[in-house]
Amino acid sequence: MTGPRYTDLTQTLPATVPFVGPEAQERSRGAPFLGRVGANENIFGASPFAIAAIQAASADLWMYGDPESYDLREALAAFHGVGMGNIVVGEGIDGLLCYLVRMLVDRGDAVVTSDGAYPTFNYHVAGFGGVLHKVPYAGDHEDPKALFAKAAEVDAKLVYLANPDNPMGTCHSGAAIMAALEHLPEGTLLVLDEAYVELAPESTAAPVEIEDPRVIRMRTFSKAYGLAGARVGYALGAEELITSFNKIRNHFGMNRAAQIGALAALKDQDWLAQTRTKVAEARDEIGRIAADNGLSVVPSSTNFVAVDCGRDGVFAKAVLDGLVARGLFVRMPFVAPQNRCIRISCGRAQEQKLLAELLPLALADARKG
Amino acid sequence: MTGPRYTDLTQTLPATVPFVGPEAQERSRGAPFLGRVGANENIFGASPFAIAAIQAASADLWMYGDPESYDLREALAAFHGVGMGNIVVGEGIDGLLCYLVRMLVDRGDAVVTSDGAYPTFNYHVAGFGGVLHKVPYAGDHEDPKALFAKAAEVDAKLVYLANPDNPMGTCHSGAAIMAALEHLPEGTLLVLDEAYVELAPESTAAPVEIEDPRVIRMRTFSKAYGLAGARVGYALGAEELITSFNKIRNHFGMNRAAQIGALAALKDQDWLAQTRTKVAEARDEIGRIAADNGLSVVPSSTNFVAVDCGRDGVFAKAVLDGLVARGLFVRMPFVAPQNRCIRISCGRAQEQKLLAELLPLALADARKG
Repeated sequence: MTGPRYTDLTQTLPATVPFVGPEAQERSRGAPFLGRVGANENIFGASPFAIAAIQAASADLWMYGDPESYDLREALAAFHGVGMGNIVVGEGIDGLLCYLVRMLVDRGDAVVTSDGAYPTFNYHVAGFGGVLHKVPYAGDHEDPKALFAKAAEVDAKLVYLANPDNPMGTCHSGAAIMAALEHLPEGTLLVLDEAYVELAPESTAAPVEIEDPRVIRMRTFSKAYGLAGARVGYALGAEELITSFNKIRNHFGMNRAAQIGALAALKDQDWLAQTRTKVAEARDEIGRIAADNGLSVVPSSTNFVAVDCGRDGVFAKAVLDGLVARGLFVRMPFVAPQNRCIRISCGRAQEQKLLAELLPLALADARKG
Repeated sequence: MTGPRYTDLTQTLPATVPFVGPEAQERSRGAPFLGRVGANENIFGASPFAIAAIQAASADLWMYGDPESYDLREALAAFHGVGMGNIVVGEGIDGLLCYLVRMLVDRGDAVVTSDGAYPTFNYHVAGFGGVLHKVPYAGDHEDPKALFAKAAEVDAKLVYLANPDNPMGTCHSGAAIMAALEHLPEGTLLVLDEAYVELAPESTAAPVEIEDPRVIRMRTFSKAYGLAGARVGYALGAEELITSFNKIRNHFGMNRAAQIGALAALKDQDWLAQTRTKVAEARDEIGRIAADNGLSVVPSSTNFVAVDCGRDGVFAKAVLDGLVARGLFVRMPFVAPQNRCIRISCGRAQEQKLLAELLPLALADARKG
């Protein structure tokens, strides 16, 4: 008996992927982490109204969610001052990136991103047979001009830009993005990942005209709204592109309680404002802890901070290992020169205290080699 | 400015899809349904332990779910007496079918299903460019022998068989499925959709040897376990096939509270037993209501009943319209001769009462033409 006949593409894909969750690390260390500040989750949590709405909806989970996510899309349309046809809701930005790549990228098609940017995007491009071209960061920033020049050079169908950036936390102004757009080649779609934009300065969101066919913007309830585990993202774009998602998306893919919770979270903008304050304070505190240890940080517009360990990637990895071994879950950038840093998500007082205690120990270990 | 450059395949896909939820119908009629028995949801609901577990987990939704769904897979492996490597958890069976089709079906590849069977499977096959071949039902049953003969004829990579079936609710014994497997051609994978199997007679689940490379079985928490809105399905199969899902699946696609709720639901087998009793009673009651109106039913092994309206699809549609217009959400099969029926999910006392009240009125209207 023979096994299934996979597509040629499936056969070429790697069997192992880099998506190791903190739970897997906890299982392998045999103990839970003392602090979970490695996945850029928003530890300050979702609005109490959102949590209450999800709890209330839990008793009704015998019902499928609305395949149109109508109520949520209606509220998002009003919030952004766009039409409902300009918004598609999906299973997190990850899910929406998968759909977007699938719609545009055929085997051999060129796609451009930054070397060291969001690996899940790269995973989806590879998963549909796209050919990924990478440009380096410029001074810890993603480099729109270089990205768009590369897109022109390789005739890319899609170019990825996160603003603010992950893993470095830097951002460009929305005005700078708009100016750079002038250099986006014809026929290249910019996917502008704004997962962290609610935590950045007001001027960071690019004021893209909603029917501009050159750009699709990705937003999420996972970060500022504190609902990573709910899996609710959305995309903003021209109606023609947005409605095309209906050709391929999993129409009944949304968790019903998550739809309801995201709507409640959106309505609680006071909580979002409080979150912004807490995140800003936590960023400053991480900066102080780093400085106390003779380290600098990359200025962040997100809910995490890249702490520059001052040497190369091997050294930063040793610092990271020292923190992880002592029970603090953190991560680090994948490629040089960003991998001189470790990436620490904003914590509450208890996580910050832990960081202040453990960072000197981890640094001492790393310096011993 | 030009728009995005879609793949050739995307351009050929229809922009409209048949996935209209009851919420859309409620919006268009301007009032909520009085009874929701059209989507084969389990109105008896999930285990109270599962609901409590989801509510408790709601406060922690700032965390992503475990990308490995480890705890749930561990419990499922123990439950089924298989290895964890034989189980993949995904965003409902719909999500898993999408992944499976993507792994196997390239443009032009042949796939076989029954004419009138699960449309979401067909949607995914079309979405990856597969060519769908359909065989008719045999006496309101899906016809394994005809399906497998067609698979041999067209050299299908994949053949779909739901047991129990949707929309008719009929089933084959597991032994009959195993016997039919002897006729499955080399190189064709059988996707055996067992979404309703927990509600069917014990002998319905096909006793497939877990490492048998010819079959993948789909299971869900949406039906018997009452968690449709949570979006948790899983597949059972040979480790080589199951681990291949890791090449392409959305690793962080699962709702964290849903993972935890599904685990609690699995552990409450007493509740499942109670659900089976309630469903069996409700099926009988639908049969009585049908008989009171001079109609027969197709014997069901699921939580819904196909009520034979006794004439053609036009007549059944008129009966359905009469029920829907009066506030009872029901659906019906898509193709003849199954479309002589309307499909009614098992309801509680209040939905059954509504059905008993409204069915004579809807029938009278339909007979008037």
